[in-house]
Amino acid sequence: MELRGVGVGRGVAAGPVLRMPEPLAEPADARHDGDAAGEIAEVDDALAAVAADLNTRAQAAGGDAQAVLEAAAMMAQDPMLVDDVRARIEAGSTGERAVFDAFRSFQEQLTAMGGYMAERATDLADVAQRIIARLRGVPAPGVPQSDTPFILVARDLAPADTALLDLEKVLGLVTSDGGPTSHTAILARQKSIVALVGVQGALDIADGTTVVADAANSTVIVDPDAAQLEDVQRRIAERASAAAAPVQDGALADGTPVPLLANLGSPDEAAGAVELGAEGVGLFRTEFLFLDATSAPTVESQQASYTALLEAFPGRKVVVRALDAGADKPLSFLNDAHEENPALGLRGLRALRASEQILRDQLTALKNAQDATEADLWVMAPMVSDAEETRYFVELGRELGLKTVGVMAEVPSLAVLADQVLAIADFVSIGTNDLTQYTLAADRMLGSVASYQDPWHPAVLRLVKSLGDAGAAAGKPVGICGEAAADPDLAVVLVGLGATTLSMSPAALADVRQALAEVTIEQARAKATAALGAMTAAEARAAATAA
Amino acid sequence: MELRGVGVGRGVAAGPVLRMPEPLAEPADARHDGDAAGEIAEVDDALAAVAADLNTRAQAAGGDAQAVLEAAAMMAQDPMLVDDVRARIEAGSTGERAVFDAFRSFQEQLTAMGGYMAERATDLADVAQRIIARLRGVPAPGVPQSDTPFILVARDLAPADTALLDLEKVLGLVTSDGGPTSHTAILARQKSIVALVGVQGALDIADGTTVVADAANSTVIVDPDAAQLEDVQRRIAERASAAAAPVQDGALADGTPVPLLANLGSPDEAAGAVELGAEGVGLFRTEFLFLDATSAPTVESQQASYTALLEAFPGRKVVVRALDAGADKPLSFLNDAHEENPALGLRGLRALRASEQILRDQLTALKNAQDATEADLWVMAPMVSDAEETRYFVELGRELGLKTVGVMAEVPSLAVLADQVLAIADFVSIGTNDLTQYTLAADRMLGSVASYQDPWHPAVLRLVKSLGDAGAAAGKPVGICGEAAADPDLAVVLVGLGATTLSMSPAALADVRQALAEVTIEQARAKATAALGAMTAAEARAAATAA
Repeated sequence: MELRGVGVGRGVAAGPVLRMPEPLAEPADARHDGDAAGEIAEVDDALAAVAADLNTRAQAAGGDAQAVLEAAAMMAQDPMLVDDVRARIEAGSTGERAVFDAFRSFQEQLTAMGGYMAERATDLADVAQRIIARLRGVPAPGVPQSDTPFILVARDLAPADTALLDLEKVLGLVTSDGGPTSHTAILARQKSIVALVGVQGALDIADGTTVVADAANSTVIVDPDAAQLEDVQRRIAERASAAAAPVQDGALADGTPVPLLANLGSPDEAAGAVELGAEGVGLFRTEFLFLDATSAPTVESQQASYTALLEAFPGRKVVVRALDAGADKPLSFLNDAHEENPALGLRGLRALRASEQILRDQLTALKNAQDATEADLWVMAPMVSDAEETRYFVELGRELGLKTVGVMAEVPSLAVLADQVLAIADFVSIGTNDLTQYTLAADRMLGSVASYQDPWHPAVLRLVKSLGDAGAAAGKPVGICGEAAADPDLAVVLVGLGATTLSMSPAALADVRQALAEVTIEQARAKATAALGAMTAAEARAAATAA
Repeated sequence: MELRGVGVGRGVAAGPVLRMPEPLAEPADARHDGDAAGEIAEVDDALAAVAADLNTRAQAAGGDAQAVLEAAAMMAQDPMLVDDVRARIEAGSTGERAVFDAFRSFQEQLTAMGGYMAERATDLADVAQRIIARLRGVPAPGVPQSDTPFILVARDLAPADTALLDLEKVLGLVTSDGGPTSHTAILARQKSIVALVGVQGALDIADGTTVVADAANSTVIVDPDAAQLEDVQRRIAERASAAAAPVQDGALADGTPVPLLANLGSPDEAAGAVELGAEGVGLFRTEFLFLDATSAPTVESQQASYTALLEAFPGRKVVVRALDAGADKPLSFLNDAHEENPALGLRGLRALRASEQILRDQLTALKNAQDATEADLWVMAPMVSDAEETRYFVELGRELGLKTVGVMAEVPSLAVLADQVLAIADFVSIGTNDLTQYTLAADRMLGSVASYQDPWHPAVLRLVKSLGDAGAAAGKPVGICGEAAADPDLAVVLVGLGATTLSMSPAALADVRQALAEVTIEQARAKATAALGAMTAAEARAAATAA
């Protein structure tokens, strides 16, 4: 039997299935039969068992995961919570319901506090689920544990699940929900895990069944035969030898160069990116320098970080994005106002322009790092709306001595005004995640509208084309630095639409490099034209593949 | 002296200035000199005086304002609050600070409750300001009171201020902040008040100074001479006689018809719209049928409301928008999920499609009303993203027997895909408010990004043009039903971009009718072309005026 989905990357894997248990149903709001002491004893046992289990797993996990698990174990034994559970049972609640209510009440208090405490609230829900599962005698929700490698099948993975994923054991991921830009897909690309998302029927595969997860062909083969398994082994060996071969620069089959760059969040990641063949950096996020800070860091400390980054790329292009605060990453010294819709708030360049000294300090630090190293530094602003804002940023950058100054295309208006913008900026880099979110007016972090977050959407492709056309007319580069560039099939279409460079998680470089090497520029353009004529993201993908 | 701003509408007024006091500074967190009893006595006096003042104003106001003011008076005497203020003074706080802290604490509790109670929290802040002003012996913030007519000058007006505005006394509004789509401007258009917004220097005009507020020329003349005042009287008389003349249908100078329609929120408003010359309804919002409901209203009750509306417009076009829930108007039975960015959430057609029976019931009620009346019913869906969603809605409408089915253009992707959409929909109506908000990715309700909410922005104009071009190519109507249509200068540009009808607050019809009658279609197109070439909203407005 063969199931179809959307493959992430070009990998393939075979192994036995382990399914992630479904979340538990909410316990009925019922009363126990009068034996409060008996109910309390059962809950005490369950609390102790869950805490012990979490501590054991914490020891085994080590690293960041250890701290997360140990904190969860402490929650299961928190005296205030335990007292509340007991009081609720004495008032008549069943044990399950008492745990559910006590943890939910505490969770709401934490959420109301906001910030760090609110983030911990989610972990609390996970601990409550484990205790209730133990009381019911069913498997705990969350990523299943196994001593042998397996293919994980789930409805979808939450960030909390993936943090604890043991990559030594997980051969591949198959989800029934989620699209090519779901959390699962992003994780798979970052960690180079074989994955398929949106596989209908995946949840019906029984635990232990052998499957082939074939991301390259977007299929899941259930109970493969010997020949199919041999084919998998051959392809795994081929990919391993290809990965070991000297890395070529990104180029199409006809030799058209398409530089392949890395998205980085800290200078520490530079060496790994170089190893995977990154020809430079297409998006260096500078937020890490500002997080947890109550005021902006000094010019000197920023300069040291930028210099460390640039030194890893002598003679190479490094595109640094100015501080992108606001929305899901607020910084109190830039904007601490409450906003009903932070994604549509005072963020990116808007916030920097309102606190210009912070922007001037960052650009000065970058200028000093530019002068102190051999890298080819490009600097761009996030969340730019139009030509007027472009002019503001470009003029400020030039005033402060930067050589190459551009803007990100994330706000639809910027793409609509591409010709005006590219007359002023030295380059444009398209952030496909935000551009998709705003063009479709659908929050990219919100599950109920997740289906809109697909950069294959023809409206997004048209905006990319208008940016590509404007770049070609002005003789200026138009790069891609959103998730879209990491999808090999879409990467080809983006080049066909006029993208001149692609930047992505380093782990995605190999598959994209291979996909580009298989087509000429004419073929890429034909695929782009086919995709542009589609009415939906799925049709665009199918049309590009068929072309 | 002459100040410049942005005129709202075409009116003119002359009279003495009254300035709205600035909000009070927060009282210092100081301790009193030990005389707690004296401090308490002063506060008691202030509380009583403010309550009495509010009650007097309530009696004078009558209607909705009476209830708001009486509730405020009760807050100033709330026993729990008064006790808290006294306790804080006894603990050492000054009276001002005790009032400030006690009211703030209560306000935070109300805000945390959400819903109706949270809305009352704002009123509480206003009452606290009045008490503190009384203690300090300074004028209370908020709209000033006067027995004689005046021109109100303010930084900007909040919704709470405008609810209490005495339109018998206010000759005109002049604000130093705010743009053409600010709350002040919207109110001015709805109530047909002479207004100018964004007038730099307005706050420096002393109370009592005579000014001419000339919205048509976007100027404020300070200390006008006799000739200027005579000119004002002549123009006011002219406008009054023009308003009394028989109303013509909307048309350009060359006879090109541009039907002028009304935006309505309830069938009660139909008669007033007809009186002001509305040729039909361009946007009938159906949310009023669903508000305060815990489940959707029945087909029968909806049908009765739609029939009442349609009967007011025999032989006329009436465009009804399907339920637009979500974002700032959530309905628990459609979508009660918490959303981080509700403006980018499950709203409009997205929410209806997820609860299709509610949509089917509404469309069935509309079909029955269509069959029972002589009006020309058009039905459109809100928050539509692309051709696939357009097809879904149009096919459902046809299946249920509706004659004319279209979509709103609010999401940028829909405008980008205008050709695909207009091949399917019978018509498109552009909601310029949301289209601007999403195209610029700036929350239209958020003060810190208010400057982005300008439908003159060239990116918005380009999207309107692409919709207009697609409508012309498909031979289908493209209307405007956002605030933009109520701006006479912009209305001309919108027609030049291809809009075939304009819908607005009935009070704005007269000015727009007059502005259209002054230009030919060639002139409107020339103005549109000039605006399209601009780089900012302000430049677009200036270019259109100059053309």
